[in-house]
Amino acid sequence: MIPPRTNRQVRLKSRPNGIPQAEHFELAAADLPEIADRQFLVRNEYLSVEPAMRGWVAAVANYSKPVGIGEVMRAFAAGTVVASRHPEYREGDAVMGLLGWQEFAISDGSTITRKVYEKDLPLSLSLGVLGLNGVTAYFGLLDVGQPRPGDTVVVSTAAGAVGSAVGQIAKLMGCRTVGIAGGPVKCELARSAFGYDEAIDYKAGGIAEALTRACPNGVNVYFDNTAGAISDAVLAQLAIGARVVICGTASVASWDPPPTGPRVERHLLVKRARMAGLLVFDYQHRYEEAIARLAGWVRDGRLRYREDIVDGIENCPGAIAELYRGENLGKRLIRLSHTN
Amino acid sequence: MIPPRTNRQVRLKSRPNGIPQAEHFELAAADLPEIADRQFLVRNEYLSVEPAMRGWVAAVANYSKPVGIGEVMRAFAAGTVVASRHPEYREGDAVMGLLGWQEFAISDGSTITRKVYEKDLPLSLSLGVLGLNGVTAYFGLLDVGQPRPGDTVVVSTAAGAVGSAVGQIAKLMGCRTVGIAGGPVKCELARSAFGYDEAIDYKAGGIAEALTRACPNGVNVYFDNTAGAISDAVLAQLAIGARVVICGTASVASWDPPPTGPRVERHLLVKRARMAGLLVFDYQHRYEEAIARLAGWVRDGRLRYREDIVDGIENCPGAIAELYRGENLGKRLIRLSHTN
Repeated sequence: MIPPRTNRQVRLKSRPNGIPQAEHFELAAADLPEIADRQFLVRNEYLSVEPAMRGWVAAVANYSKPVGIGEVMRAFAAGTVVASRHPEYREGDAVMGLLGWQEFAISDGSTITRKVYEKDLPLSLSLGVLGLNGVTAYFGLLDVGQPRPGDTVVVSTAAGAVGSAVGQIAKLMGCRTVGIAGGPVKCELARSAFGYDEAIDYKAGGIAEALTRACPNGVNVYFDNTAGAISDAVLAQLAIGARVVICGTASVASWDPPPTGPRVERHLLVKRARMAGLLVFDYQHRYEEAIARLAGWVRDGRLRYREDIVDGIENCPGAIAELYRGENLGKRLIRLSHTN
Repeated sequence: MIPPRTNRQVRLKSRPNGIPQAEHFELAAADLPEIADRQFLVRNEYLSVEPAMRGWVAAVANYSKPVGIGEVMRAFAAGTVVASRHPEYREGDAVMGLLGWQEFAISDGSTITRKVYEKDLPLSLSLGVLGLNGVTAYFGLLDVGQPRPGDTVVVSTAAGAVGSAVGQIAKLMGCRTVGIAGGPVKCELARSAFGYDEAIDYKAGGIAEALTRACPNGVNVYFDNTAGAISDAVLAQLAIGARVVICGTASVASWDPPPTGPRVERHLLVKRARMAGLLVFDYQHRYEEAIARLAGWVRDGRLRYREDIVDGIENCPGAIAELYRGENLGKRLIRLSHTN
């Protein structure tokens, strides 16, 4: 190919307190330099949008250094190597990694999460069910949640990119699954597309009563993507020995200062329950193990997924806020159309 | 012995909301019936007082059925079998169990936690460091907290019956120990008697700064006996992969309704930390394993304990409230003097 001259990028313009909005980003064009020795050029085809991005731009300490003002927004992306001076990456290789919200990325390999080997499946899946969403669901449920056949597994944001996989993996493990989602459309999706035995619309009110009906023997595993009032309701109905997987806190707008809620110690004590946080990056050495199994289930039709793809990099700036407003039905991705 | 005719008992008179006070109990005398076949009579020598008793008289669901109004207060006690028609219990056997706040108890064996074999050590220890306090410390720290050599272990109510053992066992495991206690006397006790590397007086203010100084690499294990503001301060300083053992909630006056506090999810998520409740009764099948090891350490002088013994059953009614006011220095026990 003829190397592109410019590279459109979405950069962090100002630091949000809370959920990043469109105005915190700006779209700009940069010159694309020549690749150096041991570098390669990736043409991004899909850019990912995920709840964790809120943490990546927050000023408060988090897993990783905050994205700097003026820097390309940190993001996972999937694309194809279009030029390489690196011995381990060849033109035509499909890759997924922290390639940023931009059309092209130059990498020395350190930003690559993995090469994508599932060439029979859409590349976009490497950012969703066969990417960190799927891997998060897999290890969060199996390693942290430790479900046993017959357990009741409750999942918040049940129709989301992680939650939809959690529910289906739990069913594959012989569990009964109860999904919590916002609104009748997502609840119907949870049941019909993702096989939840029950779905509870938290926006309809009466979540405590609905949980009691759906979980007559209590909650053995709670896979929590929301925190907040939904968790308060679920924690009150834990079974003895329950495991709570803290995967995300989507319902909490800001942790600076941390919001208050009912204290959890008594639930944990009386029920001898466990709450544990999950960070998927801790499982980096085991990604391929999870993805191989997830891909097998996808090929068999036992693990379904849903994508919500929009075209054009200009949709990036507002995408995190949309995600937190719950407007997408399926994994939110930005697709880039390249003319060269 | 000549069988006693009457048995003084402390009964629950009314149900407290929160911490039981003296007025919630009454001292009464009951006739002592003859023992039946497969029963035996225990003369209680020490009656125990412990924070968990608050839960036993609470109306809200807990581990066990609440003590009924008019019933003898549920309590651990240690004593001697003085008459037996049971093949497994002989006159002279020392026993510890749920024998109640009373001078004598008739048992069929179901209320006995264990026979006390450590005849070379004071019987009172079977209610403290060689009883459920010691066993709670042992399994809570080792099984739930999973300390590793070099870890920083923080303990609330560090000079208490459980906390004092936790700190010493953690030192025996090669950890650095930081105790939190109320007031300079208990802090000094934590350091000098129980070997804490540092002791923080939570009543002195500035607990967050004191923790930062005492735990420059963060908190690897937090053994929590208090909940409340102390926990809020400790949870903010967890190290990655920290384990929080929820053993008690002494600083929370009432759980009905549950008090609010800063939400913990973000700490658990960012630090990939774990909070888990501990109930010692779940370890019943392993008590002897712990007690054998604890008794060895006591005999070697490597595990120290402190008792705060008062004489006379008339001290029972106010004893739980005193415990929650933190007035005792050491395991609070009531000693009974028997004239027959």
